[in-house]
Amino acid sequence: MSTLTGLTITVLGGTGPQGGGLARRFAAAGLRVVIGSRTADKAQAAAAKLASVTGGAVTGTDNARAAAAGDVVLVVVPWGGHAEMLKELAPDLAGKVVVDCVNPLGFDKQGAYPLHVEEGSATQQAAELLPESTVVGAFHTVSAVLLDAPDEESVDTDVLVLGDEREATDLVQALADTIPGVRGVYAGRRRNAHQVEALTANLISMNRRYKAHAGVRVADI
Amino acid sequence: MSTLTGLTITVLGGTGPQGGGLARRFAAAGLRVVIGSRTADKAQAAAAKLASVTGGAVTGTDNARAAAAGDVVLVVVPWGGHAEMLKELAPDLAGKVVVDCVNPLGFDKQGAYPLHVEEGSATQQAAELLPESTVVGAFHTVSAVLLDAPDEESVDTDVLVLGDEREATDLVQALADTIPGVRGVYAGRRRNAHQVEALTANLISMNRRYKAHAGVRVADI
Repeated sequence: MSTLTGLTITVLGGTGPQGGGLARRFAAAGLRVVIGSRTADKAQAAAAKLASVTGGAVTGTDNARAAAAGDVVLVVVPWGGHAEMLKELAPDLAGKVVVDCVNPLGFDKQGAYPLHVEEGSATQQAAELLPESTVVGAFHTVSAVLLDAPDEESVDTDVLVLGDEREATDLVQALADTIPGVRGVYAGRRRNAHQVEALTANLISMNRRYKAHAGVRVADI
Repeated sequence: MSTLTGLTITVLGGTGPQGGGLARRFAAAGLRVVIGSRTADKAQAAAAKLASVTGGAVTGTDNARAAAAGDVVLVVVPWGGHAEMLKELAPDLAGKVVVDCVNPLGFDKQGAYPLHVEEGSATQQAAELLPESTVVGAFHTVSAVLLDAPDEESVDTDVLVLGDEREATDLVQALADTIPGVRGVYAGRRRNAHQVEALTANLISMNRRYKAHAGVRVADI
């Protein structure tokens, strides 16, 4: 926690289920949280709700202002708008740790499947579009349902953290550790992010088969 | 176990560390095991050793005869020889459940990384080359070291099982369940095999960072 003291955590896409769930958990852990959304109104409404529920310091604004306000900025937006948004926000994100949480997935009646990403993965695409930021991949496989469930105090999962800069991956592991039950685990470099992003398709298959909210735990660590 | 009664399990590449470890565990579980290798001599020597260590029924022969002898045939060969071997053995493998365990990985001084596979994954390549077989992907992420360690009675990991035919994935889950500590978990269709094969690169990164033999457990199932 000490490495996180005084940092502001921004969640771009913080009004969606995954982003909102993460924002809620970070606020509950006592971190200062800024929710970003395409429209400031929507972000403010979501922030007010989370502040009242968690008693934490949560504010909301448009994505550009939210990006500028954060020390650590989580990207939790739909894959469809990923590249475009990052291109726009690149100046605001310079010098920061950017945590890409996006799963490039397609869906059909057989379920979910990974989409082809020219750069290899969403995380690698972010790194190419944000040369002035330090890009880490994480929080891909965490169930939005469990994050955002008021009755689920503890979330039974590890968060796989991918990145090339040790200081940044350590920081994001510490951020994951603030969620009760969760453990941040270093899982390799950005070039190995694709399969972690895509693994969410497998978790969705498992959820369907087993009626569960499957998460990943790493054994022997 | 009942679904496995009377079945012969063949391990192609059963003289390597991963294949040998699996053969050893299946033999210890009381299954009839045939080890295949490029040369019959090498397979026979490995089989004799496993038979004496486990007290099980293990024989060895060349890959073609081993393929013909098995009801369930595991493919545990280096990626480099994968396609060529399966093309050759296609007639011997017709009508059988073929379990692809191959991880198409490259290695450099930064560690392991997934290789591009034209068909999408080793499992999908096998399915294309073996239209008369039922192809399942499994056992990708199980530590060879732990499988083959005489002192490690129980292996702390789940085996992710991928396939499009329920009867075959159920059978392979039951096969995984014969290894103490291991649980076979259905993890999606063959089109979602790539990321599970590639995840071994992440486990290798974790092993390096944490000095561990990392395995995957699925939470909430």
